[in-house]
Amino acid sequence: MEDSAHPKRAVTVADVAKAAKVSKATAARVLGGYGVVSAKITDQVIAAAAALEYRPNELARSMSTGRSGIIGVVVGDIENAFFSLAVRGISDAARLAGFNVIIANSGEEFDAEKSAVDLLIGKRVDGLIVTPARCDSIDHLQHVRRAGVPLVLFDRAIPELDVDAVTGDDRDAAITATRHLIEQGHRRLAYVSAMDAEGGGFTDIGRISNSAVRERVEGFVSALTEAGLPNPLHYIRLGATDQQQTDGVIKRLLSDSAPPTALLASDSLVGLRIFKSLQSLGLSIPKDVSMISFLDADWTSVTVPPITIVDQRVYEMGKLAGERLIARIERTPLAVERLRVSTSLVLRGSVATIGR
Amino acid sequence: MEDSAHPKRAVTVADVAKAAKVSKATAARVLGGYGVVSAKITDQVIAAAAALEYRPNELARSMSTGRSGIIGVVVGDIENAFFSLAVRGISDAARLAGFNVIIANSGEEFDAEKSAVDLLIGKRVDGLIVTPARCDSIDHLQHVRRAGVPLVLFDRAIPELDVDAVTGDDRDAAITATRHLIEQGHRRLAYVSAMDAEGGGFTDIGRISNSAVRERVEGFVSALTEAGLPNPLHYIRLGATDQQQTDGVIKRLLSDSAPPTALLASDSLVGLRIFKSLQSLGLSIPKDVSMISFLDADWTSVTVPPITIVDQRVYEMGKLAGERLIARIERTPLAVERLRVSTSLVLRGSVATIGR
Repeated sequence: MEDSAHPKRAVTVADVAKAAKVSKATAARVLGGYGVVSAKITDQVIAAAAALEYRPNELARSMSTGRSGIIGVVVGDIENAFFSLAVRGISDAARLAGFNVIIANSGEEFDAEKSAVDLLIGKRVDGLIVTPARCDSIDHLQHVRRAGVPLVLFDRAIPELDVDAVTGDDRDAAITATRHLIEQGHRRLAYVSAMDAEGGGFTDIGRISNSAVRERVEGFVSALTEAGLPNPLHYIRLGATDQQQTDGVIKRLLSDSAPPTALLASDSLVGLRIFKSLQSLGLSIPKDVSMISFLDADWTSVTVPPITIVDQRVYEMGKLAGERLIARIERTPLAVERLRVSTSLVLRGSVATIGR
Repeated sequence: MEDSAHPKRAVTVADVAKAAKVSKATAARVLGGYGVVSAKITDQVIAAAAALEYRPNELARSMSTGRSGIIGVVVGDIENAFFSLAVRGISDAARLAGFNVIIANSGEEFDAEKSAVDLLIGKRVDGLIVTPARCDSIDHLQHVRRAGVPLVLFDRAIPELDVDAVTGDDRDAAITATRHLIEQGHRRLAYVSAMDAEGGGFTDIGRISNSAVRERVEGFVSALTEAGLPNPLHYIRLGATDQQQTDGVIKRLLSDSAPPTALLASDSLVGLRIFKSLQSLGLSIPKDVSMISFLDADWTSVTVPPITIVDQRVYEMGKLAGERLIARIERTPLAVERLRVSTSLVLRGSVATIGR
């Protein structure tokens, strides 16, 4: 019991040196794998280190091999199925190449992301996969590049940064989903996102700092414009950050003098919140309102009706990001690219065909 | 573009020493924060380190402060909502105390867990929270204790290890759920888990190496025994590891000459698979079969009917584990304990009352 309450301090090089009856410099040479030491002394030090259960200094180890064998991943929100599935893809790619993965969660907070990036760089990861919370604040990522640590952006792209990014085909995905709704006769379509609304409302697409959301909104607007529908920005809503906020967003949308007949949810967390909002308002899907959600999340296939979704192939996205990062770590000569994983619309039962 | 394809190597102490025109040993003393160096030389080295963007050796930093400020977490399966919610609880406790969190995923594989533990110890975390994949193989965790790193077990307890554990009240939770089914008139009850079935089937409760599952099964059996129901082991099934396996498990259970009328799912992944199996067999819940699942997962509240669940209060479990670990890191004198977070049964619509 005392052991657990008062842990021993870690064994140091000095402890090993003392036990091996050699100088600290000699012990450091053996344990760090540099310099020249006789075989006899080497054996002596190794034996002492083993007896004391000395844990090699990871820095020394990585200086001799040039690698720590670790990939760092900074995810936006580990509770979002999108990211946990992506982590599986990344991990599978890493395991195949002999790398381990450590994960830090930003919770989509910019400061937490910065601190997570610093932490992982400090832990000497061989490379980083980061989902940037904001695509317009990039100093900390510039720093990663200057430190010479390979970096791959995930889910969101930052053209100014000139590093690889693995994203979905967000614009096309939104166009496809929106066109489908229009083809089914819908003329008033809403787009709902959990992005924090700066200044309380939607003003300007260009100011959405998350590139994936921005591109989805652009696709949504372009499909509405192409169909000649008026006021394409009218039903775009940000701020569906939790159930209560979403209930408010949906209630206000549906009490519009000309309420939308179909809702496009920017991600599956927003989709679930919308589903619950509609349920609590006693509205029936798709009879009263139609909806489509991004992401083939667990819940979307067991509801009544099951939800029409944009399948983002997130596992593949994660795998590709992992593979790309490893190629960078191994210095494979490759041009910087934005790799887009194509999505598909999976038709289920949440979209009604309405009179034209 | 070249930068990204051919990253610079990390700046070393030797680089700083050269730039500062001092010996490597002197630079190491300044950067590592040990030994005595004149103020002038110290300034010289710090200036050179800043100019080169030298990243301090984390080991040296942790040797001077005694802390790395990082908690390591090894989760069983990051795709399981149970663990992602727990990570939020742990992270909130950590943030309040000024610690960062890094996560590694074992995928419930014992070897991956061992390697994740080694990795995080090597990264000098101040403490570890581990969900052990097996409660009967503990050498690597003994090693953590011997290394003097505070350790808290999560979700599963290992009495032989004599360290803190934060778990649910698994035995009581299963008893409560099982009694509820019996009270509703059910006499043939099945328990279904995703645990790998060694040797292909269920033989002996004592051999279930996951303590949480073992205690749930014990609770299930004890409630059946208490009610005087025959053959309490008859409908216990392991191996519901994916949809296909679960389909097989459910099909075989329901084609028993006296099929069970109610199913208890050991976790929410198994619960979802069972729900889908029943759906694909065209069976109606609760008319044809009743079910209860562990965990208040997203999907359980939006199905028709919504699913009666055991609310495990996982966020609280995670928070408690984080707080306990931090208390250990801060050497608060505390007896080793198993902290049980109590659950509650949330009645929804998936249990039928049947004729007695």
